[in-house]
Amino acid sequence: MIRQIRARAGRNAGNGIRLGIGDDCALIRPRPGEEIAITTDLSIAGRHFRLDWHPPESIGHRALARGLSDLAAMGARPIAAFLSLGLPRQLAKFSIRAKEGRKKGTPQKSWLDRFLDGVLALADAHKTPLAGGDLSESPIALADIVLIGAVPRGKALLRSGARPGDLLYVTGSLGGAAAGLAQLSELAAASSRAPRIPQELSQQLAPHLYPQPRIAQGLWLQRHSLVSAALDISDGLSTDIAHICEESRVAAEVDASLLPIHPSATLDQALHGGEDYELLFTAPAKTRIPKAIACVPITRIGRIVSRGRNHPPVTLITHKSSEPLEPKGWEHFS
Amino acid sequence: MIRQIRARAGRNAGNGIRLGIGDDCALIRPRPGEEIAITTDLSIAGRHFRLDWHPPESIGHRALARGLSDLAAMGARPIAAFLSLGLPRQLAKFSIRAKEGRKKGTPQKSWLDRFLDGVLALADAHKTPLAGGDLSESPIALADIVLIGAVPRGKALLRSGARPGDLLYVTGSLGGAAAGLAQLSELAAASSRAPRIPQELSQQLAPHLYPQPRIAQGLWLQRHSLVSAALDISDGLSTDIAHICEESRVAAEVDASLLPIHPSATLDQALHGGEDYELLFTAPAKTRIPKAIACVPITRIGRIVSRGRNHPPVTLITHKSSEPLEPKGWEHFS
Repeated sequence: MIRQIRARAGRNAGNGIRLGIGDDCALIRPRPGEEIAITTDLSIAGRHFRLDWHPPESIGHRALARGLSDLAAMGARPIAAFLSLGLPRQLAKFSIRAKEGRKKGTPQKSWLDRFLDGVLALADAHKTPLAGGDLSESPIALADIVLIGAVPRGKALLRSGARPGDLLYVTGSLGGAAAGLAQLSELAAASSRAPRIPQELSQQLAPHLYPQPRIAQGLWLQRHSLVSAALDISDGLSTDIAHICEESRVAAEVDASLLPIHPSATLDQALHGGEDYELLFTAPAKTRIPKAIACVPITRIGRIVSRGRNHPPVTLITHKSSEPLEPKGWEHFS
Repeated sequence: MIRQIRARAGRNAGNGIRLGIGDDCALIRPRPGEEIAITTDLSIAGRHFRLDWHPPESIGHRALARGLSDLAAMGARPIAAFLSLGLPRQLAKFSIRAKEGRKKGTPQKSWLDRFLDGVLALADAHKTPLAGGDLSESPIALADIVLIGAVPRGKALLRSGARPGDLLYVTGSLGGAAAGLAQLSELAAASSRAPRIPQELSQQLAPHLYPQPRIAQGLWLQRHSLVSAALDISDGLSTDIAHICEESRVAAEVDASLLPIHPSATLDQALHGGEDYELLFTAPAKTRIPKAIACVPITRIGRIVSRGRNHPPVTLITHKSSEPLEPKGWEHFS
């Protein structure tokens, strides 16, 4: 089984890898003056995905997207991905490639093949070879994705650099993933098995099923040294702004009227939905931030202020009022 | 919860880490001319450990030992560990440190605190800070450990360099982990809950509960450039020798009379038991290999021969016969 994964991953090899799958460790060779960025993201059936809702390609894509998005948030270039996969026995099979299969037309792809299709297509798009991992039988399906990236020494975008007076920006739009998930759950409720996704809904579901990590945008921001703090919106805007405020010891004001809400999403989904994998970043007010980076729009959504005693860490300003924005995004135990 | 783990991990900080837990990625700074070694090892309840058999400290220790042992097998020095932890809600609690607890004496430590004790004690012994990870609720307990190490460029010990005529060596003794597991399973059968391990058995169980990764020995071998191939015995000698033979395209002969069988183990446990985390390595016949490295004995157990057509990859030589040694160690799906 490892041999088959190795054969598939090999097609995706990159030049930062000195040694991939097949030894006790993989070996990578950073360029001189680079720091190595590392992130791990655990996806568990029933918690991060549902076998009866999500196409296997989407489960693979989303698992890898989480890790790539963490690299994007640091302004790192991806070097390699590692996949620790736990699978129930019935999912741990490759498609039959026997002659009789082909005679009767293309054999149906197995869950594992489709899952790897999802991982490897996104890995390929970001030139990130799968360089290793682990494999085990497991009563539930789960995937831990490890991403290794590189960033020039001292140039990584951190959460801790936001200063009062800085402006707050996001890439792309917000709430699309939550809106897509709501739609998927409706489809699933109307169906007794994994829902077939109708062609006309595939675009609306894409922000949930196939989120695009903002690698190009993160790299651009890092190379231009414009940013004082950054992270990716994985838990939800309200929770992730609180993370920046905590690490930078500041407070933030978000202007509801400025939010780039996804056309199919509500304000609530944009504020708390999570899994959009857009970048949230801050820059000094006098810094010129472009309207778009690598074809993805950039929107100013608020500003950083000083942390006050009787002052909530994050405030939402609407045309009617100004009120605390509580972190209501994803929680690890809920 | 992450804040508590961060506080505990902080005590264990090392100097290769530029940024630990708390941002989107951790950042490490390799020394000039170093390659980065990466390994991931997934441990799942019911498969790699049993909540009703293993003390939590042992589960943590063993999870980390697997990864450290992979670094040892490459001759890498550890830089940082990452832990992706999935836990049922009832295990995801820290010990109560409230005043009333202390009044009534030391409060009982929670499962999670004891698990982290196991991880961090071993991490500390090998100066390997816990620099990040992920955390999720999960119906079953599981831990994916990622180890990052460094090795001078081109100096890593690989599986692929064994040549006919080389001699085959192991560190320490074999079968102790399997014998300990057998003993633990007997204790568990006689008890309705997690077995109390009697003082007089703790030494016998130690090779299973608290295996020692051979970091010092791996580093020594790498620095002295004596070795043609190396790996760690995680799956079992019979299976792991087959791995060296496959990657090096050679065959091997093991002399049963030379095997350093652990005093409490059988020949079968030494051959197929696995989880001893000793190093298996090959070196040219004329190379002088010391009798011990960093206080751990080194034993010659056989030799590398050419791969023949009608020749098994691994042969076991006893005083009576010479027969194929089939790989009967750990399998990922069994």
